[in-house]
Amino acid sequence: MIKPLPLLPDPGAPRLTRRIGGTDQTGAATEIAVVEERPLTIYLNAQEIVTAMTIGDYPEYLALGFLLNQGMVRRDDVITAIDYDEELEVAVVRTERRTSYEEKVKKKTRTSGCAVGTVFGDMMEGLEGLQLPGAELRTSWLYALARAINTTPSLYLEAGAIHGTVLCRRDEIMVYMEDVGRHNAVDKIAGWMFQHGEDGADKILYTTGRLTSEMVIKTAQMGIPVLASRSGFTAWGVEIARQVGLTLVGRMRGQRFVCLSGEERLIRDADPAQVGEESARHRRKGAQDD
Amino acid sequence: MIKPLPLLPDPGAPRLTRRIGGTDQTGAATEIAVVEERPLTIYLNAQEIVTAMTIGDYPEYLALGFLLNQGMVRRDDVITAIDYDEELEVAVVRTERRTSYEEKVKKKTRTSGCAVGTVFGDMMEGLEGLQLPGAELRTSWLYALARAINTTPSLYLEAGAIHGTVLCRRDEIMVYMEDVGRHNAVDKIAGWMFQHGEDGADKILYTTGRLTSEMVIKTAQMGIPVLASRSGFTAWGVEIARQVGLTLVGRMRGQRFVCLSGEERLIRDADPAQVGEESARHRRKGAQDD
Repeated sequence: MIKPLPLLPDPGAPRLTRRIGGTDQTGAATEIAVVEERPLTIYLNAQEIVTAMTIGDYPEYLALGFLLNQGMVRRDDVITAIDYDEELEVAVVRTERRTSYEEKVKKKTRTSGCAVGTVFGDMMEGLEGLQLPGAELRTSWLYALARAINTTPSLYLEAGAIHGTVLCRRDEIMVYMEDVGRHNAVDKIAGWMFQHGEDGADKILYTTGRLTSEMVIKTAQMGIPVLASRSGFTAWGVEIARQVGLTLVGRMRGQRFVCLSGEERLIRDADPAQVGEESARHRRKGAQDD
Repeated sequence: MIKPLPLLPDPGAPRLTRRIGGTDQTGAATEIAVVEERPLTIYLNAQEIVTAMTIGDYPEYLALGFLLNQGMVRRDDVITAIDYDEELEVAVVRTERRTSYEEKVKKKTRTSGCAVGTVFGDMMEGLEGLQLPGAELRTSWLYALARAINTTPSLYLEAGAIHGTVLCRRDEIMVYMEDVGRHNAVDKIAGWMFQHGEDGADKILYTTGRLTSEMVIKTAQMGIPVLASRSGFTAWGVEIARQVGLTLVGRMRGQRFVCLSGEERLIRDADPAQVGEESARHRRKGAQDD
């Protein structure tokens, strides 16, 4: 199933939100749209790996992207099938190569008890020696992307309580994913890129979420040299970005932004004074987003 | 070490933020405060359980609260020691009872590969048959708490990119925790409550984050009958709240809020029209918080 680009949120999809009744501050009955949140258990071949809480769209991309970003599926692996069972809430990614992750899990859980820590260690391992490619980043693209993303109809605008991550090229949106787990939105994009053979070198990743170590690591592993956000930074996120040569732009609000890593890619071709401040509507939009 | 109440954020603590230099939208050099993010590996007796990414304050409360909220430490367990090693970034919670979690992890990881899923299953198990106690919730308290929390000096106001969770009684803040992981902030409060023998029945929990299934489950396991947030809901979060009889108030902005569960506890003693809208400063504040 190939959908035309850009691939955008579908706020009208009945499976993704539900109308729930309650009361407002005056005691009046009210009904609001609320996002769904469901478990998805991800298998790699015969091995159960993790249960993620997700909004439930694109389970195949989520499963594949998660495994890629954890280093459990390699970039040169051949995916023979991704089987999704909606009733069981299970996605199974099958590879031609006999994956050794089962042994790895067994060995590591003997000492660690839970794969979370070891998985994180694996993610860091994958970064050793990585240097992201050179690329130019025009500030006019950043401003155009922020404006386009903020005004695109989304589950966020419909129901709130959801994160967005957007894969962009120059000043154009390619794939805009949303999820209750913000890392899921990134993983869905990783899955999409792999399935469509898209390289990260000429891309920009935009997220509504914070620029934490995990977001920076995932972006670097996807080979994308630029990560931008309306939210702020963590110190470790900045450190890793500098280590792998990733351009990190945060606190994007109206004309304002701060770049804490990879300044050398920035081409300041837009006059910030011409951009103006964000409208109150967009301030609220951001505000509702945790 | 007993600190007087309320226990509030310490935005001046040197270990929690770092000043990092970069450039702003005009290309001018700028320096901003950025929150730290460090790993903390949590042990229960001899068993390594998980590595959490945390800002790093109150590692003992975080370790204990995490284990309590996962059901790995029981409410009737005697804690003999909590050892924290700052250099190794390890916290070990020691109990009088020989915990069986080691066996449990071994058994479950044979079939599941990662404790994340099983841990989640365990959390749900702990909710079976749980009914939260009756309590009254005055809307005047909600408004007073939101105002107090938004204006209390915090790491959030200092550096952004951090979540807050606040334990309250009536209209008073008792413990205000912040963390880069929003579940960590809740776990730190659970650890504090256990160490100080505080019961949840007369408490209100306020979070800056979304009202997801995991937030609702943790609040219920802490025995707290009210959870409030400036952010929105997920459908499963609402479902679980209704199942355990938890009052769920979301989208608190100025005079506005929505209650989707446990309406019967609400006493509407404040006139919303007297509360007014939030100031632009607080809108921005929320906006920066993901």
